[in-house]
Amino acid sequence: MSRIAVFAGSFDPITLGHFSIVEKALPLFDKIYVAVGTNTSKQYLFDADQRFDMAQKSFSTFQKVEIAAFEGLTVDFCKDVNANFLLRGLRNNIDFEYEKPIAEMNKKLYPDLETVFFITDAEMSCISSSIVRELIKNNGNVERFLPPGLKL
Amino acid sequence: MSRIAVFAGSFDPITLGHFSIVEKALPLFDKIYVAVGTNTSKQYLFDADQRFDMAQKSFSTFQKVEIAAFEGLTVDFCKDVNANFLLRGLRNNIDFEYEKPIAEMNKKLYPDLETVFFITDAEMSCISSSIVRELIKNNGNVERFLPPGLKL
Amino acid sequence: MSRIAVFAGSFDPITLGHFSIVEKALPLFDKIYVAVGTNTSKQYLFDADQRFDMAQKSFSTFQKVEIAAFEGLTVDFCKDVNANFLLRGLRNNIDFEYEKPIAEMNKKLYPDLETVFFITDAEMSCISSSIVRELIKNNGNVERFLPPGLKL
Amino acid sequence: MSRIAVFAGSFDPITLGHFSIVEKALPLFDKIYVAVGTNTSKQYLFDADQRFDMAQKSFSTFQKVEIAAFEGLTVDFCKDVNANFLLRGLRNNIDFEYEKPIAEMNKKLYPDLETVFFITDAEMSCISSSIVRELIKNNGNVERFLPPGLKL
Amino acid sequence: MSRIAVFAGSFDPITLGHFSIVEKALPLFDKIYVAVGTNTSKQYLFDADQRFDMAQKSFSTFQKVEIAAFEGLTVDFCKDVNANFLLRGLRNNIDFEYEKPIAEMNKKLYPDLETVFFITDAEMSCISSSIVRELIKNNGNVERFLPPGLKL
Amino acid sequence: MSRIAVFAGSFDPITLGHFSIVEKALPLFDKIYVAVGTNTSKQYLFDADQRFDMAQKSFSTFQKVEIAAFEGLTVDFCKDVNANFLLRGLRNNIDFEYEKPIAEMNKKLYPDLETVFFITDAEMSCISSSIVRELIKNNGNVERFLPPGLKL
Repeated sequence: MSRIAVFAGSFDPITLGHFSIVEKALPLFDKIYVAVGTNTSKQYLFDADQRFDMAQKSFSTFQKVEIAAFEGLTVDFCKDVNANFLLRGLRNNIDFEYEKPIAEMNKKLYPDLETVFFITDAEMSCISSSIVRELIKNNGNVERFLPPGLKL
Repeated sequence: MSRIAVFAGSFDPITLGHFSIVEKALPLFDKIYVAVGTNTSKQYLFDADQRFDMAQKSFSTFQKVEIAAFEGLTVDFCKDVNANFLLRGLRNNIDFEYEKPIAEMNKKLYPDLETVFFITDAEMSCISSSIVRELIKNNGNVERFLPPGLKL
Repeated sequence: MSRIAVFAGSFDPITLGHFSIVEKALPLFDKIYVAVGTNTSKQYLFDADQRFDMAQKSFSTFQKVEIAAFEGLTVDFCKDVNANFLLRGLRNNIDFEYEKPIAEMNKKLYPDLETVFFITDAEMSCISSSIVRELIKNNGNVERFLPPGLKL
Repeated sequence: MSRIAVFAGSFDPITLGHFSIVEKALPLFDKIYVAVGTNTSKQYLFDADQRFDMAQKSFSTFQKVEIAAFEGLTVDFCKDVNANFLLRGLRNNIDFEYEKPIAEMNKKLYPDLETVFFITDAEMSCISSSIVRELIKNNGNVERFLPPGLKL
Repeated sequence: MSRIAVFAGSFDPITLGHFSIVEKALPLFDKIYVAVGTNTSKQYLFDADQRFDMAQKSFSTFQKVEIAAFEGLTVDFCKDVNANFLLRGLRNNIDFEYEKPIAEMNKKLYPDLETVFFITDAEMSCISSSIVRELIKNNGNVERFLPPGLKL
Repeated sequence: MSRIAVFAGSFDPITLGHFSIVEKALPLFDKIYVAVGTNTSKQYLFDADQRFDMAQKSFSTFQKVEIAAFEGLTVDFCKDVNANFLLRGLRNNIDFEYEKPIAEMNKKLYPDLETVFFITDAEMSCISSSIVRELIKNNGNVERFLPPGLKL
């Protein structure tokens, strides 16, 4: 059985923090889907195509990484691509408390699915998509908070 | 490169919670060392041989699992066995805040080492070696909190 | 003086977790009001009548439980029904940090009111109205996360 | 069935914070045992008799409160006195994370036992037996941190 | 070099908690800017002029305090007024986890800027602008939660 | 009135993290006492003279910093040197929850004393005296975790 992981999120936009978690996880998996989710009741700064495109560019040289777009429940996407692992990053205990019930619920909905966590490197733990969006809206330079080489 | 993980601890005694984390991680790794640590300045309820023996019995049917005894720094043990991953369980945010600086420090001491985390299943998150020891001292029945089949 | 408690919330929808907290508290009180609150500036998946109705069905066989609808401050509702206790469930420390200032503020507004807490059973601590709503929107089967016997 | 609660601890020494939790809980219960525990492997500033005596004096005018001494597991003491509730105070989320697995474990050991929590009043949340001991050792005046009227 | 601090927020409305933090910090600084921020994508209960006015009245007798209005990034405002310190209050660990990445990000954006924290006094830690707004909407009396003398 | 701060601790040993907090605070104060505490009931890796000496060497070029040795309560030392501020670093929310009641208690014992907090820089937040001691005991190289230039 191959080791397939899903790294799901809004990626509005994808950040250096997201990129780093995938990099850490890469040796463990045969394939990682970066799954760009769209929730029709949410508003985004970047539309689904832009978010997909930024993820695509960020991982263009990574053979094991595939970018995908999805709507609906993350567990349903995992079933679709036969993934048995969810990949998540933890920056702080707010993330931990947010992720814990979701991991438990996902396991109830899809018992074969385990969630694997990496802790974000300390020097990146202040990066979040919401802070990056705030900087973008205020004309801040955000390139150093994005995956290497990615430009907006 | 093979995927080798170290799951280090005192295991005084090994619990169902420890066992469950190894079980979750098993599909991801080619080998998992359950490393039974002894710190000469700490006092244990079970001596090093007993703790090793309990771990041994718990995983006797797991071909990928090897029990080892060690003293000193966990990172040094990881270097000795060529492990590139540390495996840890997270029960709650106290665990998370305890593990975070250790993972960061280990990375500073041995940059090739990543720590991989799984969240303990909710129904086991109240189990700890210290509570089990307390029960043992007070003649409580602890078998249901130990790895399947393990008897004291 | 009788022991009257208020268990207030949006109940959008009421969950097995809510139900369980009332069940735990039942032996302590002579009467528990399940108070279905409506905040005109909030949007709900289920309207006030539906939320009241679901709570009603969930506790139809509980003689000590009375369902009520309310708007405005919880403390004002407590005064209206002569309740001297608020009942709350705690799933994790996010809940705790959220509840702590509210309990303190309620005590400042109504000094005779104490808040009584129960910790949600571990196997239910991943259930929240918001996750259940997300499942409903995505056609997930949620019945096992609702009070026993309740159907949507 | 009567409502019997146990409020267990080392009470080394009993503080105003402990006293306040019992006061809050009093209207809910027919009887509250303040159970002064002794663990032979722990060291105390005050011996078991002194700790019992201080608790006794603190609640001498409370008819529903009975002071008891115990060794061993709290759940065993609860069974002995037919208590179906444990009473605990929560000062902050460290307390919460400490209490959560204990409450869950106690429920596994004695399924009829529920733990009831009150949040310590904000102005008392900095009081702990360990800080009071530290003050005593350094000749600080601690009376305002003890139950009303209690002198050392 | 003079010691100039910025205390930035929405102040919708300013509370006794905000006031207390400035009071604590006053002896440390030569000047404190209370910077009333407006984010065009946010909705407020009080408009920018009202919020400025309430802050103005709260500190009218404080010679070292100057009220300012700003839009955009807090770091840009700090640069404009040559402030080298940000001032923040911490009520609980939710505040702490919220403030930590912001302080780190601000330092990356403006390396000369340090953030100084005071812990809110326990008896005020339940006060927040959002709870005060909720009370106002429900005709509650909020004056005791506002800076001394401030009336709505 | 001059701005005098006390930065108290065991400093067993002093770390780069401690050093960094003093550096951040330096522009705010006229004088900072680094107060090396000794508690006769605690065991140290380095004795009081060694701990004092390491602090001395770490700040030898800082004119505003004075090293002092003390026993007893921190508030009593603050009174002795007329300090009106305590200085503390916060690495994570465990630190925060530990510091909060101490700051509140100190204020009760000495109402003129405010505690000022800085958040430890992310890349240093994994450094603690206890981890450094563990490394020393296991022959690890710890110089990069100590104040610049300090050798053991």
